[in-house]
Order: sequence, then structure tokens, then C-alpha cells
Amino acid sequence: MTTWTAATLLNDISEIGRNPDGSYSRFCLLPDEVALREWFVAKATELGLTIVTDMNANIWAWWGIPGPMAVLTGSHLDSVPGGGAYDGPLGVVSSLVAVAKMKQAGVTPSKPFAVVAMADEEGARFAMPCLGSRLASGKLTKADAHKLIARDGQPLPDAWREAGLDPDLIAPDDVLLHAFCFVELHVEQGRGLADLGYPVAIATAVRPHGRWRAEFTGQGNHAGTTLIPDRHDPVVPVAETILAARGAAEREGCVTTVGRISVEPGGTNVIASAATMWLDCRAEDPETVTRVVEDIQKTSQEAADKQGCRVVWTRESWTNRTVFDDGLRNRILQVLGEDTPQLSTGAGHDAATLATAIPTAMLFVRNPTGASHCRDESASDEDCEAGAEALRAVLEELVR
Amino acid sequence: MTTWTAATLLNDISEIGRNPDGSYSRFCLLPDEVALREWFVAKATELGLTIVTDMNANIWAWWGIPGPMAVLTGSHLDSVPGGGAYDGPLGVVSSLVAVAKMKQAGVTPSKPFAVVAMADEEGARFAMPCLGSRLASGKLTKADAHKLIARDGQPLPDAWREAGLDPDLIAPDDVLLHAFCFVELHVEQGRGLADLGYPVAIATAVRPHGRWRAEFTGQGNHAGTTLIPDRHDPVVPVAETILAARGAAEREGCVTTVGRISVEPGGTNVIASAATMWLDCRAEDPETVTRVVEDIQKTSQEAADKQGCRVVWTRESWTNRTVFDDGLRNRILQVLGEDTPQLSTGAGHDAATLATAIPTAMLFVRNPTGASHCRDESASDEDCEAGAEALRAVLEELVR
Repeated sequence: MTTWTAATLLNDISEIGRNPDGSYSRFCLLPDEVALREWFVAKATELGLTIVTDMNANIWAWWGIPGPMAVLTGSHLDSVPGGGAYDGPLGVVSSLVAVAKMKQAGVTPSKPFAVVAMADEEGARFAMPCLGSRLASGKLTKADAHKLIARDGQPLPDAWREAGLDPDLIAPDDVLLHAFCFVELHVEQGRGLADLGYPVAIATAVRPHGRWRAEFTGQGNHAGTTLIPDRHDPVVPVAETILAARGAAEREGCVTTVGRISVEPGGTNVIASAATMWLDCRAEDPETVTRVVEDIQKTSQEAADKQGCRVVWTRESWTNRTVFDDGLRNRILQVLGEDTPQLSTGAGHDAATLATAIPTAMLFVRNPTGASHCRDESASDEDCEAGAEALRAVLEELVR
Repeated sequence: MTTWTAATLLNDISEIGRNPDGSYSRFCLLPDEVALREWFVAKATELGLTIVTDMNANIWAWWGIPGPMAVLTGSHLDSVPGGGAYDGPLGVVSSLVAVAKMKQAGVTPSKPFAVVAMADEEGARFAMPCLGSRLASGKLTKADAHKLIARDGQPLPDAWREAGLDPDLIAPDDVLLHAFCFVELHVEQGRGLADLGYPVAIATAVRPHGRWRAEFTGQGNHAGTTLIPDRHDPVVPVAETILAARGAAEREGCVTTVGRISVEPGGTNVIASAATMWLDCRAEDPETVTRVVEDIQKTSQEAADKQGCRVVWTRESWTNRTVFDDGLRNRILQVLGEDTPQLSTGAGHDAATLATAIPTAMLFVRNPTGASHCRDESASDEDCEAGAEALRAVLEELVR
């Protein structure tokens, strides 16, 4: 235990869910992510922590007796498809390192304390980002959770049962809702810190963020014999909607992304009968997101009408602008030093989901490439160590 | 055997490869298409025909001894994803009905005679339309065939071996190359016959037809934290290329289709690192196809450049304009009557692939919806019977 560092712990799991190109695909409750859960349980147990897997699919590793006013830390183990090595796991391993350091230093927390690994933070499996923290905080109800279908087609209740979890016991988590705070360390997802010359920053806010699904239906037909005027090809309005999304982002100075498209039946010589695309939109304020998405939807409706196609839009998720707790942030600033950089971010996090329920805070670790959700995401071993040490210092102050 | 009709035989196989929506997905050498092969072998054997499966994955059902100057008929058993019940199987079952009728009438062919079920006519599995007839006629070499990868990722040689075929024995087929003729009956793929009021037509020509694959590569990244000017998103030039393809078709009066798109890694909150789209283009003459595709490629290159992405185009297949054999067509006209409608088509066929090697002809059966490569493709039982009877009359004349 004496040699634990964030880098060595990350190295432990570097082969799990690794793609041939070096990126990672670790999806909630599928075998690779389950392997990470087992690894986390083993490591936390080695530290003398007590494991509680709740029915929201989150894993808690308790130092002492669970109870109200707990100091919580942690992050997530799942990834996007083709993600990086740090997004999620860095926060989990840094929490373990911080506990190891505190234990070695003889610290005894005066409050309940736990490291939490949250379920499906990326939403890559159940299309609901921050699934575990939404369930635990009551932002997503059991009834709505039961309706979720994994992208592999498995209904959430079936996935739950397969993992040994009872989907009927999904519920807001009293211990979490009465926690003292949740502090999440995360690799930075832009070049904010790289440009500032510091290894660690404190988060100020998360910009508002939504995901939408647009389902276009047309008329499948033969690619060789159906004349253009006779076609109802849903791929054409999909293309117009993609360009409308890009145009709106450029016009409004926000970000829109179409990173997932599904065309049915998907034959080279078949006019598609249906096509679905997913839109991710984030801006400084929620009004901009609303305006941008409404613009895109209007264009998509006109484009669909022109082809004699139908389009149905569904909002899959929404996270409002989140400002992290001022008191907690100031206390962390005192621990880390007043000159510690403070950054807002366009990325969603469990700490942001929980911020309306309990005081939360985030630490960011420098990512010199600025790349995220891809193989090129990076952080130096030294910066990871600086992050774990900063987290230790913060937690040691908070558990006093 | 006395009650065989095209409708009853199609009914025999109506559950094989059927999708929940009533369409069909029957892919070469995958279980559903293999079930159709087994059914074909059983039925042909019941008719007293002798089965020869060649190493090009085509199945021959011989009436008499195989040899040169054979009269060949048949079609294919595979479908596009989500295709109709008639495209392919109607020609196969009509051939079986024609043989049954000739046998009952005491006809004895004076030439070798076979019903052939050709492999992967749609190219839905190996991305090479008319695979079996290309191999048999030497238009696709063994070396090139060995490089084909099924869309499910299986290399062709592995799929061959799994089906009990030796991929090293893929070769031009001497019997086919020295055949007297190949006559293929097929459901019509437009409303040509519906508008003329006849149940059966004779084909005159197949318009030229090509398929291309465009692979765009960019830079995967985080959808929330990567600013628009920093992105290299390959989905944007894909959208521009789709619209360029539609625009070129409208301008030139030809048909272009993008019916298949693949986005990697395919996460809602991930800027894609790569995206691939497939283009199908057909026109009255090959020069138009070339001009249209070059236009589209130029636009796609500019669109890729603008995003800092790369694009690589690959032609997956090409079939020149095919005019069916005049002598054979006139002989069929005499059998069916001089007023039989004659139609050209934008759809590819094995009979078109073989037309540069041996005399070939096609009969089309009326499709009142005009729909093709989808569930709504149709033909009445009466028209199917008229087609089988026309095929019988033609074959009986040709085997004299």
C-alpha cells in the first residue's frame, strides 16, 4: 500500500476495456466495467474500507460507519466509446491514494467518509449521463429509470438484475442527500490549465448541457429504380440538420455535436426507411441552448417536410448551469492556496448533478493535449500525483 | 409436385429471414440464407434434379448431364437488409415451377439444363453485388475475392470455409462460360409494368451502376469542451457530401443514394474520430455516372479540407450499361407475343453481369407498388403464375 500512486493504480487497469487503437470503451455493467468494479472493490477492501453497493448501481467504499454529514469523494469508472484512460478512473484512483495517505498519516475522520464510484456517468450505455448520481439524488425516478433501454437493446431492469441489483429498490439515497459534501477530482477536458501553468485547478461552474434524439422516418426503396422526385429519403434531412447544428453553433458561439447516427436498414443500394441522429448542445446559459436547439429543430422539420419524411425530437437529458458551492470552494482555496486557478467547464459531471442537493466541488488535473473523450486525453504522472496530493489535503481538512 | 405454384413455394419460405416488420434480411452464407439454400436443394432434388454446389458459392440444379451449350435459368436467394419477399426468390421458385410443368408435360431437354441460385446478388454481405456471377464469369478474380471482408467483419475465405467451400478453388466456371443462355425472371423494381397493364415484360438494358465508399477521418474529442474552431469533425463533411450527392442527381437527372453511414466511435457526447458513407450512383450512360461522382468527390474533398479532415474514396463495384442479347430477346418475344412490353431498368442483376460473357435475357413480373428493396415490394399470385408460365414457355422453346 505504501507505493500506491495514481499512476500505478491506473497502470493496474490499463488493459481493461482497451481498444486496439489504445482508446477505452468501458460501458456500465458490461464485462469491462464490471471488471473495473471488481478491481475497485478489491483495492478499497485492501485499504480496510467497507463496500456497500447500492441499488442505484453506485459502489460506496466506507471509512467508518455510513451516516449523515458524510464527506464523499470519488468519480466514475465507465467511459465513452473510444475514450481516454483518465476520464473517470483518475478521480477514483486519486481518492484511493488520498485515503491511503491519510491512513498512513494516522488521520482519523471525525465524519463518515466514503469513496464512491458512480454508475454510467457518461451515459454511454443507458443514454442518461450521470445515471447513478441522478438516481441517488432523486433527479431521475425509479419509474423513469425502468423505461431506459441500453444502446445494446437491453432494458435497464434486465441489466440491473443481471448485475445482481434489484431494479425495484432504485431510490433516492438518504445518506447521499444528507452528506456534508462531495468532492470530485477529474482530468481537465480542455487546455485551460495547460495555458495557465498549474497542475491543479478548482471548478467554478458547469455550463448547461442537453442531449436530444431526432428520429426521421421515410420510405425504404430501391436505390436504382426509384426516381429522385418519388423518394422519401430520411438521410437527406439528417444531413441538413447536421449542417444546421454546426451553423447555429458558429452563429451563437456555443457547441453542438452530432456524434452518433443510425441508418435503417443500412444497405448501400437501399434508400433508407429511417434514420436517427443524436444532438449534444452546450452553451454559457440555458436560454442559448434552448434557442439553438429550437432553430435546429425548425430546420430539421422543414427539411423533413421537403422530403415527405417525418421527424420526432426527444430530449434525452438536460442539466442546467451549475455553480459549485461557494463556501466549499473557498475552503478548498484556503487549503490549496489563493492563487489556485479557477475554471468553468462545458463537461457534465456527477458533482454537477449533485450540486443542487448537497455542497459539491471539483478539482481538475492538467491535460496538456486538451483532448478528451478520445485516446489523446493525457495527464503526466507528476500532475496526477499533484492532483492526488491536493485531494488528500482537501479531504483531510474536510474530515476534521 | 402437381400443386407447385410460385405462390405456394414462396409461402414455404415466408418465415425464413423475416424481420418483425414483415421485411426480409437474408445475407449470403449466414443462417437464414443457408436455410433457403437447403430448402432449394430439397425442392430441386424432389424434382429429380442433380445438385452441384460450385466453389463460387452458387448452387446448380441440373436436369440431365452438365455440359456446354446449357440452357440456364434462376436468380438469387439473398436479400438486401429489410428487403421484400420477391426480389430474388421469385426467379428461383418460378424456375422450379417451370421445370415441374415441363416434366409433367413430358418435355425432354435436348440441351443441358440447370436452375442456378447465384450467391450474394445484392452484395449486402460482401459489398460486391452479383458476387457469384462475377466469380463464375471471371469478372472478379480469386485474388480480389480473397480480399473481400463481410460487413460483419468476416473475411470471405473464412466465410467460405465455414460454409464447406474451398476459397482456393474460386475460379471462372467453364460450363457457365460456354452456356447457350441464361434467362432470369425477376420482380419488377419500378412501376413500369403497373402503368402498362401487362403482367410480364422483357428487359432491354440495365443502366450503368457503381458503388463507392468514402472514409472521412478527423479527430475524436469531447463534445462539451472542444470549441468549434478547434474541431476536426468528420460528420460535417459527410453531411455536405450527402447533400452534394442529392444536388448532383437533381441536376443531372440520375439517381444517387446514401443508404449506409457509420460513425466512429458513435457516442452522443463524443466528436467523431471517423465516419464512412457509401454512395450508390446510376445514370443512363457511364459518362454521366463518372461526371456526377467526380463532382461529389470534389465537394467532399473541399468539405473535408475545410474541417481539417481527410477523405479517401474507394470504388467498391462498377457495372457498365448492359444491353441484353438481341437474338435471344427476339426469340423470347416470338414465344410471348410481339406486344409484350419491353423495359430498361436501373437495377443490377446477375443476368446483366453475365451478359458480356454469354447471351442473357430477363423477364420482369409486375410490381403494383413499384416499391423495391423494402417490405412494400409486391406481386399478385396471378402475376407470379403468369411469370412462371411465361418462363416455362420460353425455356421449353430454348431447350428444344
